[in-house]
Amino acid sequence: MNILKNKILDAVKDDLEEIETALKENLKPYLDLVSQTASHILFAGGKRLRPLLMVLSARICGSKDFDKTFSIMFEYLHAATLLHDDLVDEATLRRGKPVAHSIWGNSITVLVGDFLLARALSIASDTGQISVIKIISKITENMSQGEIHQLIKKGHIDLTEEEYMEIIENKTAMLFQGACQTSAIIAGASQEHEKAISDYGLNLGLAFQMADDLLDYTSNADILGKEAGADLKEGKLTLPVIYALKQADSKDKAIMERIIKNKDFSFEEFKILLKLLDKYKGIKYTEELAKKHIIKAKKSLTGVFKPSATRKILINIADYALSRKY
Amino acid sequence: MNILKNKILDAVKDDLEEIETALKENLKPYLDLVSQTASHILFAGGKRLRPLLMVLSARICGSKDFDKTFSIMFEYLHAATLLHDDLVDEATLRRGKPVAHSIWGNSITVLVGDFLLARALSIASDTGQISVIKIISKITENMSQGEIHQLIKKGHIDLTEEEYMEIIENKTAMLFQGACQTSAIIAGASQEHEKAISDYGLNLGLAFQMADDLLDYTSNADILGKEAGADLKEGKLTLPVIYALKQADSKDKAIMERIIKNKDFSFEEFKILLKLLDKYKGIKYTEELAKKHIIKAKKSLTGVFKPSATRKILINIADYALSRKY
Repeated sequence: MNILKNKILDAVKDDLEEIETALKENLKPYLDLVSQTASHILFAGGKRLRPLLMVLSARICGSKDFDKTFSIMFEYLHAATLLHDDLVDEATLRRGKPVAHSIWGNSITVLVGDFLLARALSIASDTGQISVIKIISKITENMSQGEIHQLIKKGHIDLTEEEYMEIIENKTAMLFQGACQTSAIIAGASQEHEKAISDYGLNLGLAFQMADDLLDYTSNADILGKEAGADLKEGKLTLPVIYALKQADSKDKAIMERIIKNKDFSFEEFKILLKLLDKYKGIKYTEELAKKHIIKAKKSLTGVFKPSATRKILINIADYALSRKY
Repeated sequence: MNILKNKILDAVKDDLEEIETALKENLKPYLDLVSQTASHILFAGGKRLRPLLMVLSARICGSKDFDKTFSIMFEYLHAATLLHDDLVDEATLRRGKPVAHSIWGNSITVLVGDFLLARALSIASDTGQISVIKIISKITENMSQGEIHQLIKKGHIDLTEEEYMEIIENKTAMLFQGACQTSAIIAGASQEHEKAISDYGLNLGLAFQMADDLLDYTSNADILGKEAGADLKEGKLTLPVIYALKQADSKDKAIMERIIKNKDFSFEEFKILLKLLDKYKGIKYTEELAKKHIIKAKKSLTGVFKPSATRKILINIADYALSRKY
């Protein structure tokens, strides 16, 4: 599936370069330490999916002179939440590198997160569009509540699929949706176009998070840059496990629960769990649900926008979201 | 000086009630835990100075129908920064009560802070004024950098008066200024009025923080709700100490430095330090500088606004800022 990835990267090469430049030029801190900490998270090999979605959304909505600066607001917001979430999750690694709070401490990490969040909002205000501000502040509200919801439910074996969907919508999908929607607004898109690209973003975001959660069970640690089964060790139940628990007979359910509740499970125990996830189709169910959302995402585009190079890239991104291995 | 306080409270009784209602009604979380944590900091006996400044600024600028909801945005922002700062400072008490992170843990505290920050921005966006958003996001950027600056300089015995002024402007005074200025903008004030009330807020904020920093050396623990000398024990140098260190002869300077560097100083040692602050006029210098800013604040008002009941309250607030004992 690297062909698909390379195809996308080839098509957006110039855009990605401009995005990198904008990310660097708009940081504007007066303290070196802020710049260092923010750069650690901002330039750690992120995929720039959110800025890219903004650039492509504006383009498909007909904008010819979309200011790349606007494309980075959700990347700053995303980086801010990563800084705070890694702290919340007591993570040690992100993309194979030590997390910011292990280098600069919790205090600086909290405050640099606040700074990035504020920079995101400053950039949003530069659009001059109140509706853009409303979307980004609503997303920030929901993301923090989504994270809190997930935190409260840590270790709860009874998390439902509905709750899981609500959590991933709040903490991930709304940001994708917001990136697409605000970009359409900035581009002066029609309501029909705004709705279509916004639906694309939402469904892509849901599928993206499901695919991400799947990686914890299908990828190996070297590729992922974090420990296999890391979510579960943090007490985070995701859809593959939620679904398998619901389907399992009482004996297998008891085995799974015992492994999940013991957060120090061995690799052998993890392999037993993987077998049960397979037996009860937890992986398959999640893959299929993610696929359904990708189909929806693509339909939102093809139903409204005429064929174009930009539409093709957005469709490729949707397909790639399902297939990525890290 | 309780007479002055009572005079103010009497004059703004109805406003304060409406502010309390607005603070409660606009929290709008979907999780109980968010509401509990946010309420712990929001309803802990705060003076509501920032909302009050907004209400009074709008009124002195001629607004007859200022929406009280807008008055609370800076109180939410203030509460958000208190949650994060108490965590950063590793504080244990705030206004005599255990700090939020000691009850709900660091993670929830970080995330509820983010939620309150986002709520503040949502309310700002409800004004429909881009210039209001620009001010509040700029303030948030500067506040986080001001806190980081203070954090970097913790325990640095060579902090200068200039750096101190920059820190208190960023972390406190700009918020006061912003409250006054945004309110003038919402009220549709003239540029002259906007500038006057904004200058009032800035100078009031500077004096307010100096007076606050003085309390660490002039108040006792029972009244303050935190330990005497707490700033110093955190390694936080404020103007009384900065000035006295600069004036002291080498022998006294060495004594002061020894006490400051030993963060576990005894009450006896603290009393020695207080004597030296007195000898080298650190307290007096800070009081006089605060007084100068209060005079400036009042002049901004009297130079531009005609005498009125509202002007009188704003002047009383300025005088009270100097005299408060907790």
